[in-house]
Amino acid sequence: MAASGGSSWPEWLAAQAAERAAAGLQRSLRPRPADDDLLDLAGNDYLGLGRHPEVVAAAAAAARTWGAGAGASRLVTGTLALHDELETALADLTGRPAALVTSTGYQANLAVVTALAGRDALVVSDAHVHASLVDAARLSRAEVAVVPHADVAAVSAALAGADGRRAMVLTESVFSVLGDAAPLLELAGVCASYGALLVVDEAHGLGVAGTDGRGLVHQEGLAQQEHVVVTATLSKALGAQGGAVLGSPAVVEHLVNRARPFIFDTGLAPAAAGGALAAIEVLRREPALPALVHDRITALAGALGVEVPAGAVLSVPMPSPQAALAAQAAAREEGVLVGCFRPPSVPDGVSRLRVTATAGLGDADWARAAGVVGQVAKELGAGSPGPGEQGAR
Amino acid sequence: MAASGGSSWPEWLAAQAAERAAAGLQRSLRPRPADDDLLDLAGNDYLGLGRHPEVVAAAAAAARTWGAGAGASRLVTGTLALHDELETALADLTGRPAALVTSTGYQANLAVVTALAGRDALVVSDAHVHASLVDAARLSRAEVAVVPHADVAAVSAALAGADGRRAMVLTESVFSVLGDAAPLLELAGVCASYGALLVVDEAHGLGVAGTDGRGLVHQEGLAQQEHVVVTATLSKALGAQGGAVLGSPAVVEHLVNRARPFIFDTGLAPAAAGGALAAIEVLRREPALPALVHDRITALAGALGVEVPAGAVLSVPMPSPQAALAAQAAAREEGVLVGCFRPPSVPDGVSRLRVTATAGLGDADWARAAGVVGQVAKELGAGSPGPGEQGAR
Ligand SMILES: Cc1ncc(COP(=O)(O)O)c(C=O)c1O
Ligand SMILES: Cc1ncc(COP(=O)(O)O)c(C=O)c1O
Repeated sequence: MAASGGSSWPEWLAAQAAERAAAGLQRSLRPRPADDDLLDLAGNDYLGLGRHPEVVAAAAAAARTWGAGAGASRLVTGTLALHDELETALADLTGRPAALVTSTGYQANLAVVTALAGRDALVVSDAHVHASLVDAARLSRAEVAVVPHADVAAVSAALAGADGRRAMVLTESVFSVLGDAAPLLELAGVCASYGALLVVDEAHGLGVAGTDGRGLVHQEGLAQQEHVVVTATLSKALGAQGGAVLGSPAVVEHLVNRARPFIFDTGLAPAAAGGALAAIEVLRREPALPALVHDRITALAGALGVEVPAGAVLSVPMPSPQAALAAQAAAREEGVLVGCFRPPSVPDGVSRLRVTATAGLGDADWARAAGVVGQVAKELGAGSPGPGEQGAR
Repeated sequence: MAASGGSSWPEWLAAQAAERAAAGLQRSLRPRPADDDLLDLAGNDYLGLGRHPEVVAAAAAAARTWGAGAGASRLVTGTLALHDELETALADLTGRPAALVTSTGYQANLAVVTALAGRDALVVSDAHVHASLVDAARLSRAEVAVVPHADVAAVSAALAGADGRRAMVLTESVFSVLGDAAPLLELAGVCASYGALLVVDEAHGLGVAGTDGRGLVHQEGLAQQEHVVVTATLSKALGAQGGAVLGSPAVVEHLVNRARPFIFDTGLAPAAAGGALAAIEVLRREPALPALVHDRITALAGALGVEVPAGAVLSVPMPSPQAALAAQAAAREEGVLVGCFRPPSVPDGVSRLRVTATAGLGDADWARAAGVVGQVAKELGAGSPGPGEQGAR
């Protein structure tokens, strides 16, 4: 928390708001109507499955069959046969031995790290991991060593200092902000040699990266490695809501018994579980969907002169926060939504547009959206990052 | 984490599992079929709204209108007009000035405490609060003072030691395990006199306690108090999934800008939001529902000779963990599911049956279920708690 403001709550809240306003960092919610005709290149429904007729029908059917909620914790009466089916499908899709479904991806990360690591463990975390993994490490009370992004040597050095403690390494497979892939094979090798666990968040990998969208852990041949634990979300490429942990039966059993964000939480709602299950079925039947995302993002990356990303997230460096904001606003004027990252929410100080390819748009809409993004980004200096890049990492 | 087990992960997991098995504390998931005919007095769907035709139809309709997921963070493109509508309805139901919907009740608690309290704050927590509030306080990095259950003098003494820091008091309105009500008026008074915030988790109050199920904060005339922040879940009496924060506009705006479990998380799925919204409409139209729950729980409490609880949760002390387990098993034999709490998951060392009244059962089913519970509980010594009560608190 910032230290500014008086010690009374109203003063403190007002001071915090004033600070945000002065910094131009005030955020607000902008509800969208159901018939919104903006083209969404900012969201994470990469395969367009959130609105796929089969997925929507399955979500609706699950609500009718099971009710609007699970009604209780998974450990009381809140485990439905539907959860069981979804866990089997997720394990099957990713090639992993066992799966556990949680109510959000955020809580999947909290569950894994807090149930496995404690004061007596060491957590080594890539500097770019998602807020949910950062919070999870903090909540676990383990010692946390943050290492530079994608730096296998630094991970290895940190593990060498574990001093007999159980150790766990945290990474994403496809990183949320920059869209790059982690060096999973190398990380898994280093972890194996030190007896450490490797936790891989496939939130942005599942459904879009790896063979037929089965994720990068599968792609790298690591799916059967016992020391690799995967987390995922059902809320991005699978178009629904919820999270999952994919690992060995021993890890899953441990979480069922010890993970507070799993145990003391209502089971995932039937509609979300049913929707995600149908999304997996569509994905397995139509490997052309992740391939289409890949083609689209590759073409757009080429047009913008940036590297082709590992998943569906294209990160476009901009010369300044103002340029990034102006490009986002200009795209919106043309009916296209893109994301915008500025300090302090970029890991390296470089402002960026975040553009997601989605198979959910028809060819004509995609062509128009990609054209708008290419034009506004280039007009505002895309590809020539500002001074942050050297300084901030 | 327990300290037992070797320092390798497989050894440690095996040792943890062996320890659980030896203590008879192994938990496992028991998927239930859609056509389950067990009578559920263990879940939290207190009003039976999870399967109410209007709620189910609204959940299905929301999935069809909005898709299976929100598709992005609320701050990117994941805020739907439906979320806005739900927030208005929740604020209206509870009489509070503003509302913010989160993806789970767990994350609502994490959001409030971590965004408002930091290293420079003091958090005073009732010893019986839910795991999500405990985790929230831990994650906030504030100093945490745990005070005895429902002890206003202890809260006051802790606040007196705040030493100029901003302070926050954590309580539930109706407690999850024992079913008792917090002394909200007194707590709000003490907090006001010290300039502290009072955070009240109405997870088990909303929908069942207070006038027409509007919760205990409303009932006690505290709904307009700026220093009171309410959290709630949409997954219990409202029959769906999700969480909410109900407070002043300044608090809600602060959370939108600073609460990581809100910002870095996918918005609540449309079906859950639509289901909860319809549940609120049914509740407002049918105040007889919370009244029915109250009548049922009052009669059952009378039959068992225990105090009438504040909400829908009846806590029945049993003479031993074995007796509690045996009663639970005997009820199940008769087709009735009840909850069972044993050490270490009871706050005071007393084993208990946890029985929830639900308006979701017809009169005949309820009569049969209540009869079974009354009989097995009495046969196994209900009402005569074991030695834990004196020792463990
Ligand atoms: C890398 C990563 N992990 C976890 C999450 C959390 O998943 P969920 O939104 O399902 O809680 C997100 C984003 O929301 C993410 O980007
Ligand atoms: C008191 C209390 N607060 C919060 C929660 C968490 O709510 P949710 O299940 O919606 O995450 C629960 C139970 O699940 C609870 O009992």
